[in-house]
Amino acid sequence: MADVGSALADVVGAEHVLSGEEISADYGGDEALGVAPQPPAFVVRPETTEQVAGVLRVAGEHGLAVTPRGSGTGLSGGAVPVPGGLVLSLERMNRVLEIDTANHVAVVQAGVTLGELDRLTAEAGLIYPVFPGESSASIGGTVSTNAGGMHAVKYGVTRHQVLGLEAVLAGGEVIRTGGRYVKTSTGYDLTQLIVGSEGTLAVVTEATLRLRPRAAHQASVLAPFSSLREVTAAVPKLVGSGLDPLILEYVDMLAMAAITANADVDLGVPEQVRQTTQAYLIVTLENRSAERLEADIEALGGLLTELGAADVYVLESNAARELITAREKAFWAAKSAGADAIVDAVIPRADLADFFEAVGGIGERRGTLIVGCGHAGDGNVHLSVFQPDPEKLTAVLREIFTEAMGRGGAISGEHGIGREKRPYFLDLEDPVKLRLMRQIKQVFDPQGILNPGVLFD
Amino acid sequence: MADVGSALADVVGAEHVLSGEEISADYGGDEALGVAPQPPAFVVRPETTEQVAGVLRVAGEHGLAVTPRGSGTGLSGGAVPVPGGLVLSLERMNRVLEIDTANHVAVVQAGVTLGELDRLTAEAGLIYPVFPGESSASIGGTVSTNAGGMHAVKYGVTRHQVLGLEAVLAGGEVIRTGGRYVKTSTGYDLTQLIVGSEGTLAVVTEATLRLRPRAAHQASVLAPFSSLREVTAAVPKLVGSGLDPLILEYVDMLAMAAITANADVDLGVPEQVRQTTQAYLIVTLENRSAERLEADIEALGGLLTELGAADVYVLESNAARELITAREKAFWAAKSAGADAIVDAVIPRADLADFFEAVGGIGERRGTLIVGCGHAGDGNVHLSVFQPDPEKLTAVLREIFTEAMGRGGAISGEHGIGREKRPYFLDLEDPVKLRLMRQIKQVFDPQGILNPGVLFD
Ligand SMILES: Cc1cc2nc3c(=O)[nH]c(=O)nc-3n(C[C@H](O)[C@H](O)[C@H](O)COP(=O)(O)OP(=O)(O)OC[C@H]3O[C@@H](n4cnc5c(N)ncnc54)[C@H](O)[C@@H]3O)c2cc1C
Ligand SMILES: Cc1cc2nc3c(=O)[nH]c(=O)nc-3n(C[C@H](O)[C@H](O)[C@H](O)COP(=O)(O)OP(=O)(O)OC[C@H]3O[C@@H](n4cnc5c(N)ncnc54)[C@H](O)[C@@H]3O)c2cc1C
Repeated sequence: MADVGSALADVVGAEHVLSGEEISADYGGDEALGVAPQPPAFVVRPETTEQVAGVLRVAGEHGLAVTPRGSGTGLSGGAVPVPGGLVLSLERMNRVLEIDTANHVAVVQAGVTLGELDRLTAEAGLIYPVFPGESSASIGGTVSTNAGGMHAVKYGVTRHQVLGLEAVLAGGEVIRTGGRYVKTSTGYDLTQLIVGSEGTLAVVTEATLRLRPRAAHQASVLAPFSSLREVTAAVPKLVGSGLDPLILEYVDMLAMAAITANADVDLGVPEQVRQTTQAYLIVTLENRSAERLEADIEALGGLLTELGAADVYVLESNAARELITAREKAFWAAKSAGADAIVDAVIPRADLADFFEAVGGIGERRGTLIVGCGHAGDGNVHLSVFQPDPEKLTAVLREIFTEAMGRGGAISGEHGIGREKRPYFLDLEDPVKLRLMRQIKQVFDPQGILNPGVLFD
Repeated sequence: MADVGSALADVVGAEHVLSGEEISADYGGDEALGVAPQPPAFVVRPETTEQVAGVLRVAGEHGLAVTPRGSGTGLSGGAVPVPGGLVLSLERMNRVLEIDTANHVAVVQAGVTLGELDRLTAEAGLIYPVFPGESSASIGGTVSTNAGGMHAVKYGVTRHQVLGLEAVLAGGEVIRTGGRYVKTSTGYDLTQLIVGSEGTLAVVTEATLRLRPRAAHQASVLAPFSSLREVTAAVPKLVGSGLDPLILEYVDMLAMAAITANADVDLGVPEQVRQTTQAYLIVTLENRSAERLEADIEALGGLLTELGAADVYVLESNAARELITAREKAFWAAKSAGADAIVDAVIPRADLADFFEAVGGIGERRGTLIVGCGHAGDGNVHLSVFQPDPEKLTAVLREIFTEAMGRGGAISGEHGIGREKRPYFLDLEDPVKLRLMRQIKQVFDPQGILNPGVLFD
């Protein structure tokens, strides 16, 4: 062990190799509710791509498991190391290398946070349109989980913004994929293969990201509905309207109560309306022209009423900001309410109502409270599952995932499989596809040192 | 051989196995200028996914090379079979299985043409926004080349519309990837790996495609510029303006003359302006509101003038349609003018001017006429290269690709590598990435029966 430590110190400098007591609890885990933290043998904090390559070579020589880590905000246990393993933290590789306004791309190191990138792109009148709930998340982490968030209904998820990568293979070789262009048909798309691979194929050190013009104006409406079925029936109509919503979220009654109580937000919805409300839609539009935005909000209001909304509240901009921030923090509300698992399954959005009905049935049958909100426009549901008994919890989750997959959906829409959902993934996914994935893993990482325990056993 | 023939006939029926004289010349090639057609030993036309699987199993048993074929409109020789091999034509799998208006997806068999899909989506008020120049191209072929076209600047290329696939592996196993949703983080993205793989990883039998609302109104302007540098400087400004162009094409003076002469289009640009014009921009906007479109075209005109356009012509809708159709047919104009190769390199769009200057230099030094048009908004240039001497042509192409890659670009933006660009690809691409790609190929197709000679030797 001392041996490995000094080899690592030779690569990154002794002060950037932590072991034993020096390792703070943070490095042991992420925000997944169901995966116990695990302190690693070492935390290594490289500053350059060459150092990352050097660390991987040392790990390879000593057969040490390597868990890449961004900001540790993941919700699937993907950044939880293995005992005796090494956490490779990208936190010091936090430089925005370029905001290229002619090509509309940002070139950033993996450790840059979404918050920092948002600040810098704003100055240039541009935007990186990936807004998961947590702005401290890193580019490397969001690339590796293919993070989504509320703006995905308009702009797509991380995958759709990543034009190129610099990544280090398990053997220490550095590759550059893609570039400052939105299209290419030049061999297999290694960029897209690495996106969403949760640190199991390569360590991402740099990303070239597509930026968009930042729209000057935004406005939001809140629409209560007396049935979840009406909400989900409204979604395709809103997406098809041409109003091109930036945000299209549903929040069920219970989740809304928890979210607003937790954040102390008052939405001005009268008690009487609240009592008959089963779920809310939050819709945000954006436009470069204030006038057009106003006309669109007007049209949106009319459409929502037609679609059965009990009322339509155009939110003051601060109330809207508060509500959306509170919605982003729904995870914390669920956690503090004692949720035992967060599901982020994705299903065809037209099936949402039937899916909810089925989930309701599962909850009832299994004596389990299940509360929901989510990215309705994408068919990506976020369910908080309250079931302290581990065996029962497993059974409930298995049923929910089976239901989602039976409807042509998938286990995770944006949080990834990590360690937490691995057993369900390995159990429910097509064995032929699993075999292909394992063999692809083998191509990139023949020794199996990159994030063992994530995705595969 | 008779043996193989009857085994194939057992799978698809004798009338759908062609050999010898029964094979029309068409099946020997595609539209690539530089790859000689090659008649295959067999043409097989399955009607179902099970039959495709059966054909692949027979091919595997007999070690027969299989070249999947859509409509044969490809521009890289990707559908040219190997001697003694088998062409697997998807032409009979041409059913649109569903236009799902709630989820905004189309589910189609691989042999469906873009033209047919456009007709059916139009009826539903939706659009599949991939418009390469050739509407007879098949979904399977466009998925396999990751086809682009003029609308990519707004909607992205094929890759960005493909939500899921059904595909048959070389061994005859059938997998289904993705689904009717725009996001997933559930293992490696096999969908995106197969997109653009040019028939070398799997045979695509069905695709789930994202549809968008069809905008009711379109308008186009033509702007002549007196220098190519002004044109390319204008591009980022137009993309960043928020006007969100649907089409943003440049056409140089010589290409414009060829295109319009070939199609007999009169654009009404006065002789005097034409004489000082080095290149044109064609910009199309769309909107669901005629009024907003008019205002945007007004703003676009002002912006183009600011950016140095000699004049701005708002095209009558029939003139616009003619010009755009003529531009789509630029390939035929180049072919009939005697072009020896078409380059579709992609580079960062801000580098277009410098790249053109360099290409001009290459042409001059090597005594080769090079004429251009292309998808300026994407940095995707289409160069017609006139050089009948094969050795000189190779040298010119090698220099052009090297120049593109030196600027952080890639050999092909949308046509693919196929057979035609394989030597350049293998020569110029990073050997580490080539090794990964070959090994991925090995995972999907251990016997190497799928489209040998395409991408790799
Ligand atoms: C309050 C809250 C709300 C959230 N809301 C959303 C939401 O709406 N949508 C959404 O998509 N997500 C959401 N998330 C979770 C989301 O997954 C993370 O925010 C983010 O994507 C992970 O980034 P990170 O830097 O924290 O990565 P980490 O947690 O450090 O790591 C995540 C995974 O990526 C790998 N990894 C990290 N960096 C690299 C690298 N450089 N190279 C290779 N692998 C790497 C890790 O090994 C791990 O498997 C939320 C999280 C919180 C706490
Ligand atoms: C006039 C003209 C203009 C064009 N303009 C453009 C343009 O602007 N942008 C652009 O991107 N392209 C353009 N193209 C070329 C474009 O590549 C093709 O139009 C199309 O993508 C190929 O479709 P296809 O069905 O003809 O495929 P084919 O030519 O039959 O095959 C193309 C490749 O895909 C493979 N393949 C086909 N079907 C399958 C399947 N089902 N499963 C697995 N592999 C398969 C083949 O083996 C081959 O490698 C143009 C072509 C023409 C003739």
